[in-house]
Amino acid sequence: MALKGNLLVGQSGGPTAVINASLAGVIEQAKKHEQIEGIYGMDHGVEGLLREDILDLRSESDAAVSLLPATPSAALGSCRKKLTEDDYEKLLSILKAHNVRYLFYIGGNDSADTCHRIGRLADEAGWEMRVVGVPKTVDNDLAYTDHCPGYGSVARFNALATRDAGLDTRALYSVDTVKIIETMGRNAGWITAATALAREQADDPPHLVYLPERTFDRERFLADVKREVERGGGCVVAVCEGLRDAGGEPLVAFKHAVGTDSFGHKQLGGVGDYLVNLIAEQLGIKARFDKAGTIQRSFGLAQSDVDVAEAKMAGSAAVRRACDGVTDQMVTLQRVSQNPYRCETALAPLEDVANAERPVPDEFINEQGNYVTPAFLDYVRPLIGGPLPPYARLNMTRVARQVQS
Amino acid sequence: MALKGNLLVGQSGGPTAVINASLAGVIEQAKKHEQIEGIYGMDHGVEGLLREDILDLRSESDAAVSLLPATPSAALGSCRKKLTEDDYEKLLSILKAHNVRYLFYIGGNDSADTCHRIGRLADEAGWEMRVVGVPKTVDNDLAYTDHCPGYGSVARFNALATRDAGLDTRALYSVDTVKIIETMGRNAGWITAATALAREQADDPPHLVYLPERTFDRERFLADVKREVERGGGCVVAVCEGLRDAGGEPLVAFKHAVGTDSFGHKQLGGVGDYLVNLIAEQLGIKARFDKAGTIQRSFGLAQSDVDVAEAKMAGSAAVRRACDGVTDQMVTLQRVSQNPYRCETALAPLEDVANAERPVPDEFINEQGNYVTPAFLDYVRPLIGGPLPPYARLNMTRVARQVQS
Repeated sequence: MALKGNLLVGQSGGPTAVINASLAGVIEQAKKHEQIEGIYGMDHGVEGLLREDILDLRSESDAAVSLLPATPSAALGSCRKKLTEDDYEKLLSILKAHNVRYLFYIGGNDSADTCHRIGRLADEAGWEMRVVGVPKTVDNDLAYTDHCPGYGSVARFNALATRDAGLDTRALYSVDTVKIIETMGRNAGWITAATALAREQADDPPHLVYLPERTFDRERFLADVKREVERGGGCVVAVCEGLRDAGGEPLVAFKHAVGTDSFGHKQLGGVGDYLVNLIAEQLGIKARFDKAGTIQRSFGLAQSDVDVAEAKMAGSAAVRRACDGVTDQMVTLQRVSQNPYRCETALAPLEDVANAERPVPDEFINEQGNYVTPAFLDYVRPLIGGPLPPYARLNMTRVARQVQS
Repeated sequence: MALKGNLLVGQSGGPTAVINASLAGVIEQAKKHEQIEGIYGMDHGVEGLLREDILDLRSESDAAVSLLPATPSAALGSCRKKLTEDDYEKLLSILKAHNVRYLFYIGGNDSADTCHRIGRLADEAGWEMRVVGVPKTVDNDLAYTDHCPGYGSVARFNALATRDAGLDTRALYSVDTVKIIETMGRNAGWITAATALAREQADDPPHLVYLPERTFDRERFLADVKREVERGGGCVVAVCEGLRDAGGEPLVAFKHAVGTDSFGHKQLGGVGDYLVNLIAEQLGIKARFDKAGTIQRSFGLAQSDVDVAEAKMAGSAAVRRACDGVTDQMVTLQRVSQNPYRCETALAPLEDVANAERPVPDEFINEQGNYVTPAFLDYVRPLIGGPLPPYARLNMTRVARQVQS
């Protein structure tokens, strides 16, 4: 007999442009299953759940739910909360009091860990409840999945932004010769790597791409920039906020204790500013930096249609699988065909996903450690949806000189 | 008899999302006038012209020209070049050698000055040449025009980015409580002010908006932020990179001499970083900043369709007027109707426009100096083209508590 009861879904960690598409997938799929009674949402993830702040999602209009996939950021509210043993006990009592039998948490590896622990606790207490994780992270660093919902859109934003900021530098390189584009990415360089999608012809920006998977070497960096500047036409450099030196320390860390979240993750930043000053001091060349910050992960206009569809599919699959009896698993995406690109959902144990990280592999980074490989571009290109909009390229034919020889 | 000869067009100053639309307007209009023979472009503005780097724009395909309006940044290349007396003499000899009779320079107030001087010199030398400026600046600080092509699109970008980054903060305010959005704007706050278009309902971000037209007061700023944070739900603050203290000094200026262009304009930056640290130190609250930098002025996807159309219209009008005999003028935009919004082109003397600046007027800034007025919103709303795409708003109905009272 089917397990009857209420469903509870939450959103966790950093928002993305498509985390609400996963939420819409959960809600719309849940409405198709009779064994699911109430459809509840956590108001700001487990942090709100601890205060018993629970939302009735069946009361939301179809119009609102249908707009969710186009709406960036986390509509239910999010949190970054590392739970204590007491918190877990309290959560279980709240889940039981609300007859929650289906629990879905849309998040990254910390969320997978949280889910796994709640599920184990419920199990030990004899409370039958299906717990399924829905993957979400712009960082794209979850293991066991080809890629993560949220990544395709932040990749699209950075491809667009790098192409446009690159055209900007090419136009005005006699004034602003070097442009640093600082992207997100705490430990993995997936987001930074995606800036390379801006290059359509040889010599197009970005000219240099530095990922945290390679140690940042000041002298090599300066030599790279100098060489690119001498080539002419300006130099566009994409760097990850999480770049580290030979000692494994971030180039720049936030100075204040308030810059550390409850998982101990330090807020990074300032790499762009640091490099602008380094280039000015060491090379005497004027540089500037763009740091889109949270705009990159939440920019609705840059949503990848593939990403939106997959995020929704992941939410939908989580509910379908849970109704089939699956628990303690996270939905994953498996690329079953590259050409034409096609992804299907699969499952991986929450415990395996939890706290695992997947850095950009060696085969996606060039030997010099200052760009990505064609293999990476093949990997990432389908994820950003359609191609970038076409731009004019003038042939720039010169008129014969009359005055100067 | 019509003045026959060649046309030369250049792009100057910081790129925008629509400066190529003005170029397309010039090229397409020029092709309609028989007295215009060669259609030439300056390769990187007057800087390239001094090297006699001139492009033959009649050799560009119709397909390329028709894609120009959708292509951000300056396709001909741009510069920031303050010309010496010798430079002006040299330019005139190059213009004469290439039989340039129609000169168009798409730029801001420095460009208007350059144009006016070239025109005067030609006049003194008895070289008949029509010189017309085409307005362009994301800063929107040109006098004698209702607004400047380029502004509508940077305003649209910042409205979109602030709405999205604002949703991001609302979702995760328990971790990142304050978000600083640092926008461009050297001396005028027009760009920063446009972030207020993100607010659709009371309490929507941005919550505070600081323009350089008002002295930055540290204590008032901290009190404003503290009050907004206590209201709950996080606080989003838009600030201009050009904020100044009571002594008229920028809050943060670029440290290096290479950060100053040939007009003596200092590169600004770091206001966001400065305020994040100020809030952490003085209020003990975690903040972060987004600084889209040059992405905001060149982001193709955020083009305002009104801005594209007006930029093209301005380029087109410049050629039409010059063919009619106008010279030493800049094309301006005059708002002839607010509802429905409609703009027409007019003219203003280059000399009047040159080196004049138009700050945001008092009636567009609230009394406390921490937000804009409804009058400003009426002014700016038509410029960003269509409304922002609709987003879901959940009604967030709470489920009755079972565990806690």
